[in-house]
Amino acid sequence: MEVIGYAARGADTPLAPYSFERRALRPNDVAIDILYCGVCHSDLHMARNDWGMTGYPIIPGHEIVGRVTAVGSDVTRVQAGDVVAVGCMVDSCQRCDQCRKGEEQLCREGMTMTYGSPDRNTGEITQGGYSKHVVVRQEFVLRVPEGLDLSRAAPLLCAGITTYSPLRAAAVGPGSRVGIVGLGGLGHMAVKLASGLGAHVTVLSRSPDKMADARALGADALLVSTDEQAMAAAQSSFDLIIDTVPVRHDLNAYLPLLDVDGTLVIVGQVGPVGELMTPPMLFGRRRIAGSLIGGIAETQELLDFCGRKNILPDCEMIRIEQINEAFERMVRSDVRYRFVIDMSSLTAASD
Amino acid sequence: MEVIGYAARGADTPLAPYSFERRALRPNDVAIDILYCGVCHSDLHMARNDWGMTGYPIIPGHEIVGRVTAVGSDVTRVQAGDVVAVGCMVDSCQRCDQCRKGEEQLCREGMTMTYGSPDRNTGEITQGGYSKHVVVRQEFVLRVPEGLDLSRAAPLLCAGITTYSPLRAAAVGPGSRVGIVGLGGLGHMAVKLASGLGAHVTVLSRSPDKMADARALGADALLVSTDEQAMAAAQSSFDLIIDTVPVRHDLNAYLPLLDVDGTLVIVGQVGPVGELMTPPMLFGRRRIAGSLIGGIAETQELLDFCGRKNILPDCEMIRIEQINEAFERMVRSDVRYRFVIDMSSLTAASD
Repeated sequence: MEVIGYAARGADTPLAPYSFERRALRPNDVAIDILYCGVCHSDLHMARNDWGMTGYPIIPGHEIVGRVTAVGSDVTRVQAGDVVAVGCMVDSCQRCDQCRKGEEQLCREGMTMTYGSPDRNTGEITQGGYSKHVVVRQEFVLRVPEGLDLSRAAPLLCAGITTYSPLRAAAVGPGSRVGIVGLGGLGHMAVKLASGLGAHVTVLSRSPDKMADARALGADALLVSTDEQAMAAAQSSFDLIIDTVPVRHDLNAYLPLLDVDGTLVIVGQVGPVGELMTPPMLFGRRRIAGSLIGGIAETQELLDFCGRKNILPDCEMIRIEQINEAFERMVRSDVRYRFVIDMSSLTAASD
Repeated sequence: MEVIGYAARGADTPLAPYSFERRALRPNDVAIDILYCGVCHSDLHMARNDWGMTGYPIIPGHEIVGRVTAVGSDVTRVQAGDVVAVGCMVDSCQRCDQCRKGEEQLCREGMTMTYGSPDRNTGEITQGGYSKHVVVRQEFVLRVPEGLDLSRAAPLLCAGITTYSPLRAAAVGPGSRVGIVGLGGLGHMAVKLASGLGAHVTVLSRSPDKMADARALGADALLVSTDEQAMAAAQSSFDLIIDTVPVRHDLNAYLPLLDVDGTLVIVGQVGPVGELMTPPMLFGRRRIAGSLIGGIAETQELLDFCGRKNILPDCEMIRIEQINEAFERMVRSDVRYRFVIDMSSLTAASD
């Protein structure tokens, strides 16, 4: 079917309306009317070809909440009318060890991303959630628990799972001491989720001005990273630090804050993070790790957890025609903390 | 008692004979006649003040094998005549969580190193194993299992435990895929120990010439790190990589070799390791960790394991007066694979 979306046609052009074809329903497919789509930093990077892997035109968007309009003949998990969600991936091989473990994001053949990936059957390039409709195989369609505010749920699909997965991998719960670096889309979710899991949560920031924000999100403390005395006093006091900063930055100041066998998990920066000094790693047996979204089962677990605890991102709702301005504001970190596109604005503006 | 040793008197002076006092036996102490002492890269770094923490004179040596000559009144673990060993540390607080877990090397108050540390009771600076005798509290005295060749056992106390501890932390055994970077004192022990634990062991080297050496040590394969095709083919094929290289070097080439959740453990370089690139960590959930020798109980476990398996380092025996030449050769990696000082040469030369 023909669908309208907002696409980038080149690295330097703004996103603009674009009509394209979504595939006809396969037996295993779910057709979804998109209600809301979150705006992720990756969307901007991909639209602008910052990672050198973008083909054009590209329709970004991988934090999707919508309503099922039709299902293929083999679909059993959802039915028309259900409120569902789609995250960063829409397919994987479903056969390898990682897929069988529920870690589809680490599929040995590579996951099929929600936008910018070749479809595994046709080779057609996937297009994302800045659009009216999407068609996704049922294994990658998530259930949105009843009662969760749909207008704010979308960012859980990327910002949420990206920070939830390393919290769960570290078995964070009451008694855990968790530090969060960076208070953007990912960072603010990390604070809410770690707090929801019962941890003692500290926001690490260069600025003491962040105290009120940190507290409002549920953090127990703010550690000002430019305060040498406070940093020295905080040595060895964290079990886990989640580093959400999406630009090149120095890790060496954070490593000594970890306790023995503690881990700093990078989820923000895709690229260089400066020269690494080994002494804090050697003398405190500290670790640096990366983490990548999470599997489908874990994403469903996150949605259900947020449903039970009523944990939601802080969002600013925009209309689709504001997306280019939103990108600019995101570059300036001028958003608290995540833009969500009300996709009904696309009908009104362009249909 | 007055003891003779070989000391550095300054960063630029060669090691030379030096007479000093060992403390009188405390009730908990063991007096040891030193038979052999291994020569570690750290000895050279400390003698030359490469880490900016050396006080002079300093007598290096923390791979000590000897015979008990006398014990204090409270000593129950060993008796005169026993063959024993002392490694990198001679004391710790014995009360903190790390000490209670048997991780004395991570003591919250700091371990007392075998040389160059203030004694916890008197503040007197400890002096190491390039000497005739040493006095150590019984909790830090290890038993050398019967049948182990004493002339080759000493390097197990640092090179051995430093590589054994990360192998055990990763639960390496049959089926484990282990890579070893650097084939010096630590690296050659890592190969022998990983192989002894039943792992499939690959030596990573810039040079294809290392194949015969790697095989002789028990490795199953050699991966030539300058061979781009071989490196690409080996992507995601290791559970654990132990990096023993003791100088600044780039980690980024090794990270993609790790499988999902695999760890690169740094045990060699104390200092910078270049700019770190995050994509292999993010997209494969790979980790970098540090590790520091091992606890006393684990060191005893290692000695017993090597006794059962007859695993021993390849050593070149030297006389104490050859120590300065040995340092020079160590700098040039001209040793296979560890110098051990026959301490009977000290008597002959200097008494």
